[in-house]
Amino acid sequence: MSEQALQDLPAPSAVSDSETAPKRMAMICWSSDLDRVWPTLILATTAAASGMEVDVFFTFWGLRVLQKNDKRLTGRNWMQVGESMVDRGGTRHLRLGKVHFAGLGTWMIKRLAKKNKVAFPDELLQTALDLGVRLHPCQMTMDLYGLKREDFVEGLNPTLGAASFIDMAAKADIVLFI
Amino acid sequence: MSEQALQDLPAPSAVSDSETAPKRMAMICWSSDLDRVWPTLILATTAAASGMEVDVFFTFWGLRVLQKNDKRLTGRNWMQVGESMVDRGGTRHLRLGKVHFAGLGTWMIKRLAKKNKVAFPDELLQTALDLGVRLHPCQMTMDLYGLKREDFVEGLNPTLGAASFIDMAAKADIVLFI
Amino acid sequence: MSEQALQDLPAPSAVSDSETAPKRMAMICWSSDLDRVWPTLILATTAAASGMEVDVFFTFWGLRVLQKNDKRLTGRNWMQVGESMVDRGGTRHLRLGKVHFAGLGTWMIKRLAKKNKVAFPDELLQTALDLGVRLHPCQMTMDLYGLKREDFVEGLNPTLGAASFIDMAAKADIVLFI
Repeated sequence: MSEQALQDLPAPSAVSDSETAPKRMAMICWSSDLDRVWPTLILATTAAASGMEVDVFFTFWGLRVLQKNDKRLTGRNWMQVGESMVDRGGTRHLRLGKVHFAGLGTWMIKRLAKKNKVAFPDELLQTALDLGVRLHPCQMTMDLYGLKREDFVEGLNPTLGAASFIDMAAKADIVLFI
Repeated sequence: MSEQALQDLPAPSAVSDSETAPKRMAMICWSSDLDRVWPTLILATTAAASGMEVDVFFTFWGLRVLQKNDKRLTGRNWMQVGESMVDRGGTRHLRLGKVHFAGLGTWMIKRLAKKNKVAFPDELLQTALDLGVRLHPCQMTMDLYGLKREDFVEGLNPTLGAASFIDMAAKADIVLFI
Repeated sequence: MSEQALQDLPAPSAVSDSETAPKRMAMICWSSDLDRVWPTLILATTAAASGMEVDVFFTFWGLRVLQKNDKRLTGRNWMQVGESMVDRGGTRHLRLGKVHFAGLGTWMIKRLAKKNKVAFPDELLQTALDLGVRLHPCQMTMDLYGLKREDFVEGLNPTLGAASFIDMAAKADIVLFI
């Protein structure tokens, strides 16, 4: 291949689809801790705003992030309902994962964020949807928790399994487990 | 390069080896928490089942996942033996990382998983081996814990250091730290 | 494109820059837990020692890793100062994230590491700088904590935002969130 041909060669992500394909990011949102959901949504919205295609797969604890904020109890049997009591879902009810910070920590970090005009998870989730970020609930976790589509916010993509997420991730330029 | 040449160009992962090379996944299993080991093994087995080559590097707390389930105490000095007492190894003794769930949580999630026919970590580890997933214990962590090869399950790959894992990861299409 | 041309094609990472570009690694250091900072710095220094270009973005709890060890309190208001009291920064003050190990655990793991000649985070951070690893503090987190450049160790790269880190990550061969 000539020197000229090499310079004309598109970047790897473009090669895989077409010459003009945008870069792609695929993330696993595994946690419902405030301090993990926050960077996940900041990265998702920032990448989408700069023209990247973004997929986020919500699984395990992370599935609760997609729950409607006014939905208190979920599940089809006593174990699932019990789990939903101690693990409240929705972007407005996320708490810090760090133990010595529980309570005061969550309140304080949110106040500091507000003072510094950092958008909150509920706004960021809406921004993500507005920017075309694809949010995929994990089917297996839905079954485990007994969650139904009507427990979730509007605008989500169809549910996925691990195999479909792996397909997406193999095509992405950035893959993160958060 | 002509339009035709561009279409003939193989995908990036194939370019790096040969035209027919399968996609690759490389994961760091850093934790022995049930809620982290579970997705690691689900992703590993799902990827392998769909034809990908998968490497998992077990390091730090994650090394305990490979320990035989009937091995109670390990180590060569009192500190190492003490560590093994509070950090029991083996796929059947993993517990959830979330604090407010300790105890009841682990038992309840396992019951929900059983009801939903989600395979348990011990079955998934065996499936991973059957599907050709390469499981690498971290040499440095073995030395730190005083663990010996006979403390581990059968079928593992040779021990690795960080440099060898980085080589694998640089060639992989999906790299995850879980 | 001919058979010959295909063989001459450089690996994907090289394609994206030039024929001789080194492989790249981009990591997010999100945590200040000893058991997460340790692998981050081991991976960073090992990759750099083998000729890779390495960028590490210190954000959220992880920003505290870059704080000077003799800097006790930081921040511009009572909330920020209070946060710095319970979340002491600096590579010598990191503690294990695992709860049942707090206290004794951190001391014991450090003793085992010393016995096995595993370098400590403060040495590894210096080694990283010596090997040309680029360490980027997150601007948003600095504002949140009220941290100033003089609170940090010497030798860091300019502060970054999420968009700049995403640019780096999209060009990297290995991307990790730790």
